[in-house]
Amino acid sequence: MSWSSWLAEEAAARQAAGLTRWLVPRPADDDVIDLAGNDYLGLARDPRVRAAAASAAETWGGGAGASRLVTGTLDLHAELEAELAAWTGHDAALVLSTGYAANLAVVTGLVGRDCHVVSDAHVHASLVDAARLSRARLTITPHNSVSAVVEALASSAPGERTMVLAESIYSVLGDEGPLVELARACEEAGALLVVDEAHGLGVHGAGVVQRLGLAGLPHVLVTATLSKALGSQGGAVLGTPAVVEHLVNRARPFIFDTALAPAAAGAALEALRIARADPSLAACVRSRVLDLAAVLGVEPPDGAVLSVPMPSPQVAVAARDACLEAGVRVGCFRPPSVPDGISRLRVTVSAGVPEDAWTRAVETLVAVVKEHR
Amino acid sequence: MSWSSWLAEEAAARQAAGLTRWLVPRPADDDVIDLAGNDYLGLARDPRVRAAAASAAETWGGGAGASRLVTGTLDLHAELEAELAAWTGHDAALVLSTGYAANLAVVTGLVGRDCHVVSDAHVHASLVDAARLSRARLTITPHNSVSAVVEALASSAPGERTMVLAESIYSVLGDEGPLVELARACEEAGALLVVDEAHGLGVHGAGVVQRLGLAGLPHVLVTATLSKALGSQGGAVLGTPAVVEHLVNRARPFIFDTALAPAAAGAALEALRIARADPSLAACVRSRVLDLAAVLGVEPPDGAVLSVPMPSPQVAVAARDACLEAGVRVGCFRPPSVPDGISRLRVTVSAGVPEDAWTRAVETLVAVVKEHR
Repeated sequence: MSWSSWLAEEAAARQAAGLTRWLVPRPADDDVIDLAGNDYLGLARDPRVRAAAASAAETWGGGAGASRLVTGTLDLHAELEAELAAWTGHDAALVLSTGYAANLAVVTGLVGRDCHVVSDAHVHASLVDAARLSRARLTITPHNSVSAVVEALASSAPGERTMVLAESIYSVLGDEGPLVELARACEEAGALLVVDEAHGLGVHGAGVVQRLGLAGLPHVLVTATLSKALGSQGGAVLGTPAVVEHLVNRARPFIFDTALAPAAAGAALEALRIARADPSLAACVRSRVLDLAAVLGVEPPDGAVLSVPMPSPQVAVAARDACLEAGVRVGCFRPPSVPDGISRLRVTVSAGVPEDAWTRAVETLVAVVKEHR
Repeated sequence: MSWSSWLAEEAAARQAAGLTRWLVPRPADDDVIDLAGNDYLGLARDPRVRAAAASAAETWGGGAGASRLVTGTLDLHAELEAELAAWTGHDAALVLSTGYAANLAVVTGLVGRDCHVVSDAHVHASLVDAARLSRARLTITPHNSVSAVVEALASSAPGERTMVLAESIYSVLGDEGPLVELARACEEAGALLVVDEAHGLGVHGAGVVQRLGLAGLPHVLVTATLSKALGSQGGAVLGTPAVVEHLVNRARPFIFDTALAPAAAGAALEALRIARADPSLAACVRSRVLDLAAVLGVEPPDGAVLSVPMPSPQVAVAARDACLEAGVRVGCFRPPSVPDGISRLRVTVSAGVPEDAWTRAVETLVAVVKEHR
């Protein structure tokens, strides 16, 4: 088939299925209450974080100018890495330019064809892509099933290096992974556990792995993003110095990428300091999550994202649009972004929404959900 | 083998081969002349670009707060995309958070198992990874061999969608791809040509593809980076609206990634405007490249990076260190970053180096290369 016919057919099929998505640019300031993004602690727009980003850009320039191994490593990156490691309880950290790149780097940098990757069915797309790119043998286990992971680990050949992929807080379902049990199973089997803390870091203080006392164990690695609770852009791998040294030398998504821009590094560093010093931000998120789940009649998630199942992609879109018309921006999850094919409203709780706006937003959500479910 | 033994063995093997690399953080200001990064036009540290980055961070915040399809698309992204497309002569543009992500998105978003990818042997690591991740059938052709590409295209099954991967300026060898011939071959075979302009955009004005009159052809797509001549961070895909709409809906590295941070988008937009308005920047790079190649006795590259072959990785490192001691920072390419296994000094010519510093740097390079080659 010709490229143009193929593109047209694909577009028509999306349209017919109600799955076409498009970009809707937003202005810097509007009256809409934002419950759609991942700025869980409200730090992306915090004046201190904005000022830190601006100051880093003025000091260091618009970009880092090169990949990390050439001349792109700034003192600012080293400072951010040191504070990330200290905060989360790891001995070393490596900052990358996106969370997607961090997941790609940790998997493809450590495993290859001769390895075995055991992945929870609900891990983020970047970990799925990473496992595929690594060419390792892949076993996908049912969501949060420790026994399935134990069984998969037992199927590794003697001496076969094995990596288990999980998340601390799953983004769609919002539940927590059984990390203590997974860490134990990995230790017994000599496997490496990689935990994506994209939705855990900040919302759970220094992260779920740290809270559970698993940080710093030699067989537990963490990946994190700087673009959610830390209000910036970028990703990080947290682990042992030996792992970080290995990734610096071997992880292609790290080696062949320009370093994180100075402004993003500066913003993330300032946000980290604020989140670390002020536990009331995470506490506010938690109490709002519990309140909202109660009034919407859904199970409270372990993270900051409430997921409200909808009968179809079309209804999910209509409900989202109704919220927006009422001044509240929420997201919606539709295939192919959902592991189980169920379309959902996606409501992010953020400590950055002022109290009166929060009250109005909750009223709107209750009314719209009642009408559409 | 246990993970810890494996990490130790790998580290020891690197050490023995003289291939260990480490991160060397640099301060914001030092007296070293930088001929190592990719800030070809000197715009990363241009006061106007710094100010634009700072202003975007103040206006929009430290991060975009979400992926592009959720609420991460800012008016600023739309403005940058419109100006990128207009400058380079394409009908549409899509901005991603890194150049690596742009290459991953364009390949994995458009081809799959049932497709054929024909790739020049010297394309960037991100295109190699992208082709692997796509699971398409892959044919690697000798560097810049049009006849090999024609032959590979002829081997596509009837109706098999085929994509050809090339670069406008190759980063290690510094030579230009035979783009006119490749575009003609692709048109005849019904294939799509993807040209990575990472090292062409800015150094060659609006890019080599635009200069050759190939921009805007329906079978020619361009990927670009915002982190080299445009002095910021990020990547872009330039092409038809149909392709961009498809990538927005299907390209996982675009969909599952937080949008480019405001400061980076602001910096790239300002740099684009400066590069577009002032052709003397690209002209300065060209004349310095020709001068330096002449005094070093190497073939002048088509781009801004001079590559000086060295007898071994160890000598390449020693020569780099000697330059640094004399106040000039250059890079070195060693395996596995070089497609042909030859270690090299890597000297970036930038319009951002003041005239007197440039003269000193040339003298230093001539002396060090004489001593080490």
